[in-house]
Amino acid sequence: MALATLVHPTGSHPASWLHPSAYPGASMDIGYYRDMARLAERGMFDLFFIADTPAARTSQLEAYARFPLFMNVFEPLTLLAALAGATTYIGLGGTASTSFFEPYNVARQFASLDHISGGRAAWNVVTSANDFAARNFGLDRLPPHGDRYERAREFVDVVRKLWDTWEDGAFLRDRESGLFFDPAKQHPVAHEGRHFRVNGALNIERVPQGQPVIIQAGASDTGREFAAETAELVFASDSTLEAGQRFYADLKGRMARHGRPPEALKVLAGLPAIVADSEQEAEDTYQTLQALIHPDVGRMRLGMDLEADLSGLPLDEPIPPERIPASANLHKAYFEHILGMIREGLTLRQLYMRYERGNRTIRGTPKQVADHMEEWFTSGAADGFMLTFSLLPRGMADFIEKVVPELQRRGLVKREWRGRTLRENVGLERPGHRRQ
Amino acid sequence: MALATLVHPTGSHPASWLHPSAYPGASMDIGYYRDMARLAERGMFDLFFIADTPAARTSQLEAYARFPLFMNVFEPLTLLAALAGATTYIGLGGTASTSFFEPYNVARQFASLDHISGGRAAWNVVTSANDFAARNFGLDRLPPHGDRYERAREFVDVVRKLWDTWEDGAFLRDRESGLFFDPAKQHPVAHEGRHFRVNGALNIERVPQGQPVIIQAGASDTGREFAAETAELVFASDSTLEAGQRFYADLKGRMARHGRPPEALKVLAGLPAIVADSEQEAEDTYQTLQALIHPDVGRMRLGMDLEADLSGLPLDEPIPPERIPASANLHKAYFEHILGMIREGLTLRQLYMRYERGNRTIRGTPKQVADHMEEWFTSGAADGFMLTFSLLPRGMADFIEKVVPELQRRGLVKREWRGRTLRENVGLERPGHRRQ
Ligand SMILES: Cc1cc2nc3c(=O)[nH]c(=O)nc-3n(C[C@H](O)[C@H](O)[C@H](O)COP(=O)(O)O)c2cc1C
Ligand SMILES: Cc1cc2nc3c(=O)[nH]c(=O)nc-3n(C[C@H](O)[C@H](O)[C@H](O)COP(=O)(O)O)c2cc1C
Repeated sequence: MALATLVHPTGSHPASWLHPSAYPGASMDIGYYRDMARLAERGMFDLFFIADTPAARTSQLEAYARFPLFMNVFEPLTLLAALAGATTYIGLGGTASTSFFEPYNVARQFASLDHISGGRAAWNVVTSANDFAARNFGLDRLPPHGDRYERAREFVDVVRKLWDTWEDGAFLRDRESGLFFDPAKQHPVAHEGRHFRVNGALNIERVPQGQPVIIQAGASDTGREFAAETAELVFASDSTLEAGQRFYADLKGRMARHGRPPEALKVLAGLPAIVADSEQEAEDTYQTLQALIHPDVGRMRLGMDLEADLSGLPLDEPIPPERIPASANLHKAYFEHILGMIREGLTLRQLYMRYERGNRTIRGTPKQVADHMEEWFTSGAADGFMLTFSLLPRGMADFIEKVVPELQRRGLVKREWRGRTLRENVGLERPGHRRQ
Repeated sequence: MALATLVHPTGSHPASWLHPSAYPGASMDIGYYRDMARLAERGMFDLFFIADTPAARTSQLEAYARFPLFMNVFEPLTLLAALAGATTYIGLGGTASTSFFEPYNVARQFASLDHISGGRAAWNVVTSANDFAARNFGLDRLPPHGDRYERAREFVDVVRKLWDTWEDGAFLRDRESGLFFDPAKQHPVAHEGRHFRVNGALNIERVPQGQPVIIQAGASDTGREFAAETAELVFASDSTLEAGQRFYADLKGRMARHGRPPEALKVLAGLPAIVADSEQEAEDTYQTLQALIHPDVGRMRLGMDLEADLSGLPLDEPIPPERIPASANLHKAYFEHILGMIREGLTLRQLYMRYERGNRTIRGTPKQVADHMEEWFTSGAADGFMLTFSLLPRGMADFIEKVVPELQRRGLVKREWRGRTLRENVGLERPGHRRQ
């Protein structure tokens, strides 16, 4: 199975930076990231992944000051390039938004990262769900969901054409003939689309991986169709085995339409995990973190996904029905999940304490976590996992010390690297060059 | 004096890659760049600089196959981030174009590089003079010179505001109060201009250098005015001492108008140098390289700056007058320089063999090169130098072995690093934060 990890500086828990064992300077310490990437590599993780949004919040700062998600972080491409030299095998994945960037720059930077890392680059294609980002790029707000995905499809199409500007072996570097490259092996892009006009050639040769790996995490119908057409790694976020199996089957089922075999895409199930020698110990770690959530942060995170203003409401009463919108506009799945809990009659405090974005954190022994992973892997719900750790680097170190050896014993995780590229290690074929 | 070097993979000579001592794989070998950056650092260079244009040529490929400038290179930001971990003191400068990129991304990537490198980032602001680049970003051709500089001014203004999103010390990381940052120290940008609308906050804290260093190399009147207003390092390219002094005095003279003291900007004179123990040996190295220039390359490079099609013309006759345009559209100075040589009655071959873009390569002994540098430095033509080497890494190694110690003996080059940031080492003040 493929192992990936999504890294937030001090961990994925909203209060992680407040934990006594956390290093509050983490987000701006390149040495810290280097150590963590090396740790993940020693633990046989295939992918070290940096999520991103190109914006810092400018409102609700009282709450964000206590929950500084994406407020002060390295930019992913520069970060990953810096990590390339500190690691040898682990894949280096990062997010870049198709809504605000230019295809030429994205194509070029990921290609450059693939060369710098010797074939370990992966691009997480997102359309961004954040009006703050839109305002940094000349817009008042985010374009509608469908338009964003339309642009994303065209964006990826252009990027892939750019990646195939040069055939493999185009650069001869032949002093005898005096030819540095073979002019016949350049295939300039001539793209005139609804969103982009790109007519030219990428100024970097075809990468070690043929093309960098494409990651996608869309959950909507449009998002899934896009993933089936174009993604090679997909981050899933279902919380039950049945939902995971449905998602897996649905996604793989869509691929034939696009002429792709199911193994050309690996589903990585999201897995927030706290591992300890006893279940109680894992639970204690979780509860220690939960107790550190400030009510302002709880309110804000819940309100964001409920798309409601919860300020001023008493914590120990249910949310008044008139504050709850009739339907969701941003993350439908999160919204429905919260509505379900509201129907159970929970108070505001109980709601935000129980609510986790995406799937529930599994708290358990190494055996329990390994069993969970084995079950998902062997019953058609996942080709691998995207691990997130509430507390870093401790959570990752625990997982590597306790769970990875168990998975290796079961033959589920490799003991040796299969190769030097991300594609080789997760079992994705190197794409052939398509003449343009 | 400040020392900088502009690095092209195998050297700045158009035929460098053909030289027997060159490493033809240089442009895609990160280890090669790492070694070169370390070499420059050992030689007390303050700045390792990567020029750039976001395009590969798609025409005249027969000539470009023999002179592969920018056809296959790392992208500068990812490259510099990768070099940060391999070096400790040397500044890391790169080009990003204001004509095709977005201020938010540029601000963020250079800020990230500054944090990753501990205060060593520098941005060379260019407007690009290349229609191939324009076509990669939705345009048919480059906007006019004046428009490009207007956009560049606004671009830099926005970037600087973004860099001052957060005051120094805004990030408290204080577990006791539970405040990661002080909301009062965030100053979002509210920019509505002719070219950009940016309303938001940079998601990275103020950098070690306060702001990354701004480099500029404009030679036109508009370019100089822009430099006087905003640049901190300026690459000059005059070929005589008198011209250098005029440029220096002109540029520094323009600064008062913008409320800047002259020492806030350092002029680095371009210096292509070949050093050897005897003048003859240096000349031989130069002539060996010259002899490797293929006639197609000579024609193409000359034709580019003469803005004329020279194909099919006999090499050993002068260029027929009807092929020569009445005036220049791109690089006026290069054009005039070629016209001057044409008036001397040179043949096409003599022209391209004698023509160098920018200033003439100095070929000499360590003493001759050091004398040249001392003269320019002490007579008001330069605060430092931007060295280019015909052949890399050899040319740089020779310079470091033979010239740097001589400059140190004369007290012109430091023996110890003054600090860990580029600003400290070249003597530029850390800019204070301007409230927005
Ligand atoms: C593991 C994971 C990582 C994600 N990373 C990012 C990210 O870095 N940036 C971003 O804007 N969205 C990110 N997303 C959001 C998805 O790209 C997507 O927008 C979301 O799942 C909603 O699906 P939809 O776009 O199909 O509506 C991530 C989602 C998951 C599950
Ligand atoms: C040392 C040096 C380095 C330069 N690097 C670049 C570069 O990397 N990219 C680019 O487009 N232009 C580069 N230029 C060109 C200048 O930015 C500028 O466009 C040129 O000198 C003409 O001046 P003008 O823009 O004022 O007309 C460089 C010039 C010099 C002298």
